[in-house]
Amino acid sequence: MHKWVYSFGAGKAEGNAKLISLLGGKGANLAEMCNLGLPIPPGFTITTEVCAEYYKEGENFLGSLKADINSAILKMESLVGRNFGDSKNTLLVSVRSGARASMPGMMDTVLNLGLNDSTVEGMATQTGDARFSHDSYRRFIQMYGDVVLGINGQDFENILDLYKQENGYRLDTEMTYVDWSYIINSYKELILLNVGKPFPQDPQEQLWGAIQAVLDSWMNPRALTYRKLHDIPDEWGTAVNIQSMVFGNMGEDCATGVAFTRNPSTGEKAVYGEFLVNAQGEDVVAGIRTPRPLSSDNISPSNYINDSMESDFPKIYSDLCSIMQHLEVHYQDMQDIEFTVQKGKLWILQTRAGKRTAKAALKIAVDLVDEGLIKKTDAILRIDPSSLDQLLHPALDPNAPRVILGRGLPASPGAATGIVVFTAEQAEDLAAKGNSVILVRAETSPEDIHGMHAAKGIVTSRGGMTSHAAVVARGMGRPCVTGASDLKIDSANRTLSIKGETISDGDIITVDGSRGEIIKGEVSTIPPDFTGDFGTIMDWADSYRQLRIRANAETPSDSNVALAFGAEGIGLCRTEHMFFESDRIIAMREMILSQTINERREALQKLLPMQRADFLELFKILKGLPITIRLLDPPLHEFLPKSESEIHELAKSTGISEQTLRARAADLHESNPMLGHRGCRLGISYPEIYDMQARAIFLAISDAIQEGLVVNPEIMIPLAITKKEIEIISVLIEKAALDVEKSKNISLEYELGSMIELPAAALAAEKIAEIAEFFSFGTNDLTQTTLGLSRDDTASFADCYEKAGIFSHDPFIQLDQSGVGELIKIATERGRRKRRDIKIGVCGEHGGDPKSIEFFHNLGLQYASCSPYRVPIARLAAAQAALNSKTKSV
Amino acid sequence: MHKWVYSFGAGKAEGNAKLISLLGGKGANLAEMCNLGLPIPPGFTITTEVCAEYYKEGENFLGSLKADINSAILKMESLVGRNFGDSKNTLLVSVRSGARASMPGMMDTVLNLGLNDSTVEGMATQTGDARFSHDSYRRFIQMYGDVVLGINGQDFENILDLYKQENGYRLDTEMTYVDWSYIINSYKELILLNVGKPFPQDPQEQLWGAIQAVLDSWMNPRALTYRKLHDIPDEWGTAVNIQSMVFGNMGEDCATGVAFTRNPSTGEKAVYGEFLVNAQGEDVVAGIRTPRPLSSDNISPSNYINDSMESDFPKIYSDLCSIMQHLEVHYQDMQDIEFTVQKGKLWILQTRAGKRTAKAALKIAVDLVDEGLIKKTDAILRIDPSSLDQLLHPALDPNAPRVILGRGLPASPGAATGIVVFTAEQAEDLAAKGNSVILVRAETSPEDIHGMHAAKGIVTSRGGMTSHAAVVARGMGRPCVTGASDLKIDSANRTLSIKGETISDGDIITVDGSRGEIIKGEVSTIPPDFTGDFGTIMDWADSYRQLRIRANAETPSDSNVALAFGAEGIGLCRTEHMFFESDRIIAMREMILSQTINERREALQKLLPMQRADFLELFKILKGLPITIRLLDPPLHEFLPKSESEIHELAKSTGISEQTLRARAADLHESNPMLGHRGCRLGISYPEIYDMQARAIFLAISDAIQEGLVVNPEIMIPLAITKKEIEIISVLIEKAALDVEKSKNISLEYELGSMIELPAAALAAEKIAEIAEFFSFGTNDLTQTTLGLSRDDTASFADCYEKAGIFSHDPFIQLDQSGVGELIKIATERGRRKRRDIKIGVCGEHGGDPKSIEFFHNLGLQYASCSPYRVPIARLAAAQAALNSKTKSV
Repeated sequence: MHKWVYSFGAGKAEGNAKLISLLGGKGANLAEMCNLGLPIPPGFTITTEVCAEYYKEGENFLGSLKADINSAILKMESLVGRNFGDSKNTLLVSVRSGARASMPGMMDTVLNLGLNDSTVEGMATQTGDARFSHDSYRRFIQMYGDVVLGINGQDFENILDLYKQENGYRLDTEMTYVDWSYIINSYKELILLNVGKPFPQDPQEQLWGAIQAVLDSWMNPRALTYRKLHDIPDEWGTAVNIQSMVFGNMGEDCATGVAFTRNPSTGEKAVYGEFLVNAQGEDVVAGIRTPRPLSSDNISPSNYINDSMESDFPKIYSDLCSIMQHLEVHYQDMQDIEFTVQKGKLWILQTRAGKRTAKAALKIAVDLVDEGLIKKTDAILRIDPSSLDQLLHPALDPNAPRVILGRGLPASPGAATGIVVFTAEQAEDLAAKGNSVILVRAETSPEDIHGMHAAKGIVTSRGGMTSHAAVVARGMGRPCVTGASDLKIDSANRTLSIKGETISDGDIITVDGSRGEIIKGEVSTIPPDFTGDFGTIMDWADSYRQLRIRANAETPSDSNVALAFGAEGIGLCRTEHMFFESDRIIAMREMILSQTINERREALQKLLPMQRADFLELFKILKGLPITIRLLDPPLHEFLPKSESEIHELAKSTGISEQTLRARAADLHESNPMLGHRGCRLGISYPEIYDMQARAIFLAISDAIQEGLVVNPEIMIPLAITKKEIEIISVLIEKAALDVEKSKNISLEYELGSMIELPAAALAAEKIAEIAEFFSFGTNDLTQTTLGLSRDDTASFADCYEKAGIFSHDPFIQLDQSGVGELIKIATERGRRKRRDIKIGVCGEHGGDPKSIEFFHNLGLQYASCSPYRVPIARLAAAQAALNSKTKSV
Repeated sequence: MHKWVYSFGAGKAEGNAKLISLLGGKGANLAEMCNLGLPIPPGFTITTEVCAEYYKEGENFLGSLKADINSAILKMESLVGRNFGDSKNTLLVSVRSGARASMPGMMDTVLNLGLNDSTVEGMATQTGDARFSHDSYRRFIQMYGDVVLGINGQDFENILDLYKQENGYRLDTEMTYVDWSYIINSYKELILLNVGKPFPQDPQEQLWGAIQAVLDSWMNPRALTYRKLHDIPDEWGTAVNIQSMVFGNMGEDCATGVAFTRNPSTGEKAVYGEFLVNAQGEDVVAGIRTPRPLSSDNISPSNYINDSMESDFPKIYSDLCSIMQHLEVHYQDMQDIEFTVQKGKLWILQTRAGKRTAKAALKIAVDLVDEGLIKKTDAILRIDPSSLDQLLHPALDPNAPRVILGRGLPASPGAATGIVVFTAEQAEDLAAKGNSVILVRAETSPEDIHGMHAAKGIVTSRGGMTSHAAVVARGMGRPCVTGASDLKIDSANRTLSIKGETISDGDIITVDGSRGEIIKGEVSTIPPDFTGDFGTIMDWADSYRQLRIRANAETPSDSNVALAFGAEGIGLCRTEHMFFESDRIIAMREMILSQTINERREALQKLLPMQRADFLELFKILKGLPITIRLLDPPLHEFLPKSESEIHELAKSTGISEQTLRARAADLHESNPMLGHRGCRLGISYPEIYDMQARAIFLAISDAIQEGLVVNPEIMIPLAITKKEIEIISVLIEKAALDVEKSKNISLEYELGSMIELPAAALAAEKIAEIAEFFSFGTNDLTQTTLGLSRDDTASFADCYEKAGIFSHDPFIQLDQSGVGELIKIATERGRRKRRDIKIGVCGEHGGDPKSIEFFHNLGLQYASCSPYRVPIARLAAAQAALNSKTKSV
């Protein structure tokens, strides 16, 4: 018989942490903790296989599980000493999702299940606390109504709010047993009205409804979005955990909370977490009440109530600390633990690897190596390369003047400046139009995920350091300030006011998530710091990786940034960028507008000394590191003015009539410029352009040599289809080299190579390698041509394509391995067939994407080149690829 | 020792016709004819290998041949009984090029070589004809000066013209020995002035100069152009033929001429040709004097001088006829023969397969089979499929009224209407802009080739049926009228006048090359005739070919034409073409402009019955032949109006403001529409469009079934990248089919397939074949994406690319086999791997190109689809491919 259900409790479990794919993270860790002898309320886990079967077979499949689940309930009953549905001595359970990867708040949970009109009275009698049992009952009805029966949770809140208002109550704690009974009846009426059936009194019916709701929630839109954002396959499915309830809301000796074994913002080794007295777990995560800190060290001067668990509940605190220590050593990683204190007894409800900021991730990884808990290679593999992005951008200058509007909790570090928006939809809309936005909400919920993703920073007026907003923002690497309680949000009028100052929809604010500050306008920034843990991890990564990392850069400032980030050269120097500066664009336009080849040559002669100086400056910065110089690539019309005023100005400055300018622009117009007269096609039709560029390069080399510099230039020809183009241009370049060698009486060394960015070129790689000494895959254009997809024109259908699951990832961010990847593989094999040790690299955007880097590493390419700010990401990803391929090959 | 030189003469030759690659066409046939015992002036051939070595090793290589050539000259001297350079009894020679493929007039020739101040006098004494010897000498100096020394031939003509004018001469025949001596001196002065050295007197120096000039002429621009047009590889090289001179210009019992064994215009079996009394060969071909016909049957009422060779020289005529018969039987093909009569003796100077019109080619092939000279398969393989194009277009209606401006010789059949132009450059310029042009020249020369190619028809005022213009026009399939002597051309003012009527540059005329008429304006046309020889060859072709031929068509008229041309179905029905008609475009635009999905559905509902009726009509025409219906492909902006007046009109008719219309158009604008929101991307983002189309197809099938028709529909999804897109759309289509099946209570049969037009799709073919029941290669888009080349944007550099030899052919006409072809091969293999008998065809332009068809046949594809007018070409090409692959496999 297939095992669909795994029990745990009282120091023994059928599962363990290794069964994570089967039991989900929560279930596997509950089993593991049970086996470790920790205080875990007994329960059982329905496996992820059930979820898969359920989506294959439908509801009927669940019927076949009845016997297994009943026997698991019996085991639980005997361990707890209560019976499910027993009116005198009832067992209540929680029903929770638990997928292989953590998806916080994305799926559904039902607590206090098993209560009905009869068991609520039995519980009142047994606990002697009718208020507690009725409070639990109304919580259950509300949660069940929302999660299982699909009634808007706000409808329940409205009933409660109205009742409190009518009765002059401010806090839930003012509600008595009688008040709750009234609320229970109102809730039951709401349900009857909405679903046409009374609230189910049968605990078995309740249980099966909840199980099915949890399974269904795997496919709800926010879960789908979350999985898409985090690359979690739909096939994994969720487990369902059914566990006996413990209560943090049975009185002032009860509590519930969340504990991190290290600070998830900074990585510091310290007890970090929050708790609420007399509350259930959902109250902490939902961020409705601002909770208290666990450790006395954690107390912040402003928003916290100054009573820590350490000071108020020293025994429980010390028990919790020793369990935290135990779990961290056992799992060899920072843990995020949920606990409940029931009548002074500590229960652990969950442990998992804690989400952390990139900064914390680096510190924790380095510290765990120092503490001897993990190896350097583990440390490297634990850091998500993409997360480093958080650390690579300028931070707010601590010494710059700030107009601080208000303060909250420093929930997720970093800083961001943007336009204030008040809804997730607005955030997404404006971000799609290229704006930086800051999302301001009273609190966030899973429905806001897409807006949080679109926003550069998040502010909430409610919630603590472990509220939904805080957890999600840290996961996404967005700076976030939570619990900024001075903040008054007027959603209707789209304004917020803090201390008398009103900020409207569209105003600009800055969020400092490290300090917990909300600042008016912009603040000046300072460059990031790459020493410390960051530097340590990077050094380790460099010692393992094989792929060299270069940067795409052409300006001195970009090149300097790239080298500071550890780039080992420039993999793509787009010479055309040098033509856009104001003094050059004039000569460039003269060149384009010239009527005769002599006029064109004259204009080019003006550009030559500028290019020569540019190259020399880059050679100086690079100090002998390689630089791949790509000859002119974009179509000439890109250099002509577009707007009427610019045309007018150009006409004035050149003396060419506006009419002629427009005619020339019309001449150059192309239906599909991406596939038009660009790349080496320009070099073939206007050889004088490439000739000028080649001479500028060679003269700059000669200048560099005279200054005693070492140079390592690679000249790259873009957009070739055939070997013939490379051949023609190589002759032209060699001629320029010979001329400079003769005139300067020196010997020039350079390599000549081809971009491979068209399918035809990939297929012709063996021929091209007869001349090309290196290949560089231009994965942007190769993606455009292989998929027949213009990067500039996907907006109108990208959304449909994403929703339909046609691409598992945006192919312009993560390499399409099956199509584009196969062409890269073919070209690599063929290139090597002709020229065994041909140098092969990548210079498209994908050079900075971790998954793509793994692909390039596995193909044995020599280097990947990416934007300067992605260099550290690429270095780490390359190290991970090397380590992963080693593991696989062992 | 390597053999570089092959001698022939007196009934014996070292070579033969099989050595054509080594000896060139002329040399191989001279050897062959020698062996046949025909009267051939002795000589020798320098092989094409010498040409190759010359281009590799340079001039020095020629030095090493001296001994071989001297010994060949000795042989020739002993056969002729004269000595090269002997001042008493001199041997004169001709030096002619001779490539493997005929390149008439493209390369250089020098006649009368060996004459100098001393031999000319010896020859005068020996022949007793000082006028003749001096005429020959001046001809030699002029030719040598032009060909070897590079002096403009016109400069020599000017000297002669001036002299004649000063002395009141009209014809060359009026010039005496003294006159020619004067001219000789003037020519020598011209040479001294131009090259700074006197005209070479040493016959050896003359000979080597001429040999080198002939070798050099292989790479002259007009030869390069000709080879490009005729697919002749540069590597072949030319042989050099050195042959003892015979003279057609020694008096009234001398003549020179050209004879065809059958009529090259019509294919009729009849002696066809021309001669000039007392002339050298170049005079006939150059078209300067209008020559006389060979046969009395050939005399035309208008322009011919009425004395045929048959009537005036019956003995020579009968010798010539028997040699012609001998050669035709020997070579099993119609021959084009050059001959010279010297003092009543007939000499044969050349034979080769005669160029012929498509009509003549068909008739000759069929006749030769009937006469038992060749097999059917030979007949099929002898017709150039592309040449059929001449026969597939409407001809002038013989009964339509014509305003005949003038008449000339019917030099190349067919008719064309176009704008009059007077220079090759103008012809090329205007044709490049999409105009039909008629090139009008006094006579044409090899420099005009590019203009003749660009023109739709050619008219000359001079020259005969075998003049340069006539030969080239027939080869190119351009209608041509030559020798229209009433025509007065005023090149300076760009006008021509005939019989008082003046036609200017830009006026429209019609050329009827079959009748020899020049007609004012346009003439109405009648459809072509596909019976007779055409039908016979097509029937034979059909019996051998394996590839099915379909047509790209969507209108009833195109479909009818296609079937009349022998199409076996429709391979590409572009449904969007159905939306452009005036009543549909309105609904289409409503659909595009709709704000809501309901508005869009409403507009689509209007289109549905129109599409349904369209499909039903096609089903009726096709009578059960397959039809591949492609769902909507182009981006929606193609359907919106572009001009201000159209926008204004649309605004008025829809009630939508112009501003909104412009905004929507701007919304839909794409940077690279070829790679944009089109093809099945429309079907994914607007499923209701494809749903409407699917329903229209299924309802039309149901209508057809009810009318008792057989239908064979294939529904084709365009521009898929992945299997997933095909999957999503197939679900939608199946749903529509089920709905129609249910509502009409019938069972629908159809196939569902995918276009393969993106490299990614080609690579994913195995996956796509899981769903797709057929593939159709869209080779246009596959070429654009594989080569990264927009068909609409190549104009600005195509010329440079062609000149640089980057593409051996225009890849949008002839399939790029190495790049695009490899992807097609990969997709075919992978598709078959998943679905062994998957139906695979081609529907891009290449489906009508013979070379590409051969490639598709060899891959074992099931069908190729092309434009209706190319169907017969495709049928013949497919038969040739089948025969060629059989030969290869044997």
